[in-house]
Amino acid sequence: MNIKTYLYRFIQAAPLVMAAANGHSDKTLSLGVVVFDGYEPLDIWGPLELFSSMSGTKSIQLSVISHRPGLVTTKVPPSKLASKGATMATYIEATHSFADAPPLDILLIPGGVGNRALQENNDTSVQDFVAARYPSLQYLLSVCTGAAALAQAGVLEGRRATSSKAAWEWVVTHGVNVTWVPTARWVVDGNVWTSSGVSAGLDMVYAFLRHYYSDDIQGVEDMINLIEYAPHTDPHWDAFSIVHKVPGANLSESVVDCVRPAGF
Amino acid sequence: MNIKTYLYRFIQAAPLVMAAANGHSDKTLSLGVVVFDGYEPLDIWGPLELFSSMSGTKSIQLSVISHRPGLVTTKVPPSKLASKGATMATYIEATHSFADAPPLDILLIPGGVGNRALQENNDTSVQDFVAARYPSLQYLLSVCTGAAALAQAGVLEGRRATSSKAAWEWVVTHGVNVTWVPTARWVVDGNVWTSSGVSAGLDMVYAFLRHYYSDDIQGVEDMINLIEYAPHTDPHWDAFSIVHKVPGANLSESVVDCVRPAGF
Repeated sequence: MNIKTYLYRFIQAAPLVMAAANGHSDKTLSLGVVVFDGYEPLDIWGPLELFSSMSGTKSIQLSVISHRPGLVTTKVPPSKLASKGATMATYIEATHSFADAPPLDILLIPGGVGNRALQENNDTSVQDFVAARYPSLQYLLSVCTGAAALAQAGVLEGRRATSSKAAWEWVVTHGVNVTWVPTARWVVDGNVWTSSGVSAGLDMVYAFLRHYYSDDIQGVEDMINLIEYAPHTDPHWDAFSIVHKVPGANLSESVVDCVRPAGF
Repeated sequence: MNIKTYLYRFIQAAPLVMAAANGHSDKTLSLGVVVFDGYEPLDIWGPLELFSSMSGTKSIQLSVISHRPGLVTTKVPPSKLASKGATMATYIEATHSFADAPPLDILLIPGGVGNRALQENNDTSVQDFVAARYPSLQYLLSVCTGAAALAQAGVLEGRRATSSKAAWEWVVTHGVNVTWVPTARWVVDGNVWTSSGVSAGLDMVYAFLRHYYSDDIQGVEDMINLIEYAPHTDPHWDAFSIVHKVPGANLSESVVDCVRPAGF
């Protein structure tokens, strides 16, 4: 072929090459999630359902990280706050401690009443881990009040972020120079993704997976349809900022979101 | 007071008394969930998030039941089907075996590729447990392909039920005289509640909790708003029966559902 044809075909292929270079389907993802007694189950398990489903076709190594390996409960530990949290106990197995967790590409921090118990006990291990690992992460994610730990770690300084709307007034007391966004299902600022409360983690991580596996968006859509979840796809939709009367919430936003299966 | 006034006040109070008698807010609920290697995480953890959140104000005892107490994984065991399931492992702690689980009021059976592995290995322990316990349960719930175990246990005979739409054609080969409903987010037949795939468990269990705690519907609505989930409230909405081309699906149903916070 002549040089003109060769250049033309190269130019046609370049976006595909770039997209594939930006997508991660051919890599092993080292995913870490932190847990602590009294963590909110769906903050972790919504995202883990999505990553687990992707792991049928993608290579994902999961580390579940806590003070020490072993069982971690969703029951809120005894504290001044204990009367407000879950009394029913479920148990997840932590595979690693903060000290021995492997190198991570993505780290996800949940919320839950337990992170207030940590604060009561002057336990800074979660935010210390976030601060120590952030420089080597590709992405840092938080769900619900997990954003408070990110703020305490200093990684939200100069960034926009959101969090649980029910616990908003507590969360926004954390951090320095954080632009807390009161109406947002989730916020993306650089490589830091923060979501609203609990169920919002499903929507944020679905959007994240479309970004991370940009070379296989069809695979991500097939996955979300397999698990029969019709996602909220607009990060600006945040009915719960209105429900929970968050100061500064955009009250003109609709509380209704019309959702549908991916690709339909 | 005279007899007329007395009778009048009694008649006024009767519905409240009946509602309170039908609601369960003052009782301890013994909840059992079954798990097995390769169970689908959100089938259990969506419902557990809802029950866990209710347990801040309700008394709920949870038993996580499997072949033996100890760790159970979401990674699909080696089988002819292993290539189709999750390769990433998460671990839940089973608290009881099928043999020593306590008396239960409510039993929930999940799905997942793992229940096909059980079948390959001629392991009937899940359906045997369902069959043994059903007579003493108040309610039996299944999510996703968990309905196949209910069918194999014989408890769907003469009943209407639904299941995962992606796995529909496998599920409906199970059971005798089952009316499988191809377009349904969930189905209620007597005390047996069966949901569509994975995420549908959240919607079914939200509706179930409104029924079970009928004396505190406000508490249930407050809970679902706390976890920022805008539920699908119409059991007839089933976009995924269309997505997955289920034979007999009602193709005139809308794939769109407009959802909003509870009470809004």
